Amino acid sequence: MSGLLEEVVSRIGTLDDAAMQAARQRLDRLTKPPGSLGRLEELAVWLAGVTGQVRQRLDRRTVVLMAADHGVAAEGVSAYPQTVTAQMVANFLRGGAAINVLARQAGARVLVVDMGVAAELAEQEGLLVRKLGWGTRNMARGPAMTRDEAVRAIECGMEVAGREIAQGAKLLATGDMGIGNTTASSAIVAALTGAPVPMVTGRGTGLDDEALRRKVAVIEAALAVNRPDPSDPVDVLAKVGGYEIAGLAGVVLRGAAERVPVVLDGLIAGAAALVAVRLCPRARDFVVASHCSAEPGHRYALEAMGLRPLLDLGMRLGEGTGACLAMHLLDATLAIIDEMATFEEAGVDDRA
Amino acid sequence: MSGLLEEVVSRIGTLDDAAMQAARQRLDRLTKPPGSLGRLEELAVWLAGVTGQVRQRLDRRTVVLMAADHGVAAEGVSAYPQTVTAQMVANFLRGGAAINVLARQAGARVLVVDMGVAAELAEQEGLLVRKLGWGTRNMARGPAMTRDEAVRAIECGMEVAGREIAQGAKLLATGDMGIGNTTASSAIVAALTGAPVPMVTGRGTGLDDEALRRKVAVIEAALAVNRPDPSDPVDVLAKVGGYEIAGLAGVVLRGAAERVPVVLDGLIAGAAALVAVRLCPRARDFVVASHCSAEPGHRYALEAMGLRPLLDLGMRLGEGTGACLAMHLLDATLAIIDEMATFEEAGVDDRA
Repeated sequence: MSGLLEEVVSRIGTLDDAAMQAARQRLDRLTKPPGSLGRLEELAVWLAGVTGQVRQRLDRRTVVLMAADHGVAAEGVSAYPQTVTAQMVANFLRGGAAINVLARQAGARVLVVDMGVAAELAEQEGLLVRKLGWGTRNMARGPAMTRDEAVRAIECGMEVAGREIAQGAKLLATGDMGIGNTTASSAIVAALTGAPVPMVTGRGTGLDDEALRRKVAVIEAALAVNRPDPSDPVDVLAKVGGYEIAGLAGVVLRGAAERVPVVLDGLIAGAAALVAVRLCPRARDFVVASHCSAEPGHRYALEAMGLRPLLDLGMRLGEGTGACLAMHLLDATLAIIDEMATFEEAGVDDRA
Repeated sequence: MSGLLEEVVSRIGTLDDAAMQAARQRLDRLTKPPGSLGRLEELAVWLAGVTGQVRQRLDRRTVVLMAADHGVAAEGVSAYPQTVTAQMVANFLRGGAAINVLARQAGARVLVVDMGVAAELAEQEGLLVRKLGWGTRNMARGPAMTRDEAVRAIECGMEVAGREIAQGAKLLATGDMGIGNTTASSAIVAALTGAPVPMVTGRGTGLDDEALRRKVAVIEAALAVNRPDPSDPVDVLAKVGGYEIAGLAGVVLRGAAERVPVVLDGLIAGAAALVAVRLCPRARDFVVASHCSAEPGHRYALEAMGLRPLLDLGMRLGEGTGACLAMHLLDATLAIIDEMATFEEAGVDDRA
């Protein structure tokens, strides 16, 4: 590992047991049967463990939406042309995409990061340019990136996340855009979990049966050509990953190091988090899985990390959309632990 | 059926196909792969079908929280004493309960209705008194209510829901409070679905194994003593139901008749909705299941109605808490269909 990567990973700690215990005790004094709010109560305890605070508002929040292109798009693995990546970045900056709508509703800011879009983009309000290339190379023919590029992309993610946290972000969410990125993410999940490629490969933006078969064949070819080493997550990321996926792995690791909860979105986030967790297993305790995507590889990634998604709504859009929906559940649990009356305060009889 | 009940049921129509078609067409023009928002898109289409509007904000919303006591509490079927029902009503009115917190977060007003609490309650801001008795009679010994009481309780629910709608409510949610009401609800679900009592009976507020066995035996006794007629939902409701459950059935029917979407909460709402849907199958199209409760009977009720819950968070608190969480998903889908840019507007290439 290089300097920043090693330094950030070394700072990732463990959940704060005392804060979690205090959260549990408070939850059990509130006017409701113990445990009756189910996973909302688990979330409150987890958030206390991450930040060390029992009563808090995570009111400044950023969706770090990393965008990049993928050389493998040349293999016809997407229903949309590669031009759409840059066009959607423009849509994000004008506020017209799904993530803009859902982030507004969740009180989150969207920060787009050009990690390697195959078009010239000018840095502007809401867009950071950290371009590592005009798309990765075609992984079906050789490595998508060099190892050095992969490390630099992770470190870009760390730097961007660190910047947001320094500016006051209390909660980070992962977002992604990149035509071809479900292909790269499924390849990562297959390589790191050992799951068969057909089991972790889905229709992405809407492939038909024939195109889905081609996508599976392309991923199998990429794994055969590159032989990524499953015990070396950076090798997997470099050979079959993508710039934005690497960047999101960096966001996860930096969030964990700074004890800022990271809300994962779907398959691309799952692949990124899996890389991060393989680099540093402790990072797993600082992320929450917002939802389970309709993309089949996502479930494998979540299971490999032992993460249970909060929502399961058949979504497969990416951008951070599922993460924004889950923020309402985080807000709900924080409001519960902060605002509810205790049995004593309310004069309600507790159990005999 | 009596006058109001018959009149309301006769007005329940069908979903607006033209509005649903218009919603689908708009969703497919927005800058995302068709269908990629999964159930959020289904919700947008459904809401259009209920109200006839494609773009709308359901910004005035009420949790109709019906409270009542249950004679069957004398059998020791709850972990809490009966006094808690009235104490929790006071907690609702002071804003300290879970439902107050989650309703505030969802922008909903909580309207508590005393349908039969075993205590004197004075009508006040936020509380309507429609008391049909000081708790039902003990269903383990005989019918919980007379048939006439059951009909009157349904009609009270219709009247309260109509009042809210007349005052501008665009969305209704069901809430409930009543020590003993999971016992009554499980009995209704068993009677109306034919499911075995042990399969639909849960720990409610937190029974231990022995108390759970007693609860099952009490429900089995109630069904044996009363022999409710599964083809007659009012008979089932009267014999093994409760005042608040009957009232919520009325809320469901009135919402359906007025084309106001009704967000169902957990088991008690599920039992109430099942009664409503057996009285008028068309009512089913006007409700949405917010979540699946940890109470096992809830799943049976939902399956009997062909409803798929939006959330599954292991919650079992009632009060309308799950319904409030789901409101954020409804808001999300309404914002998506209203605010997102189309491919044309955003200059994004659509699929080839």
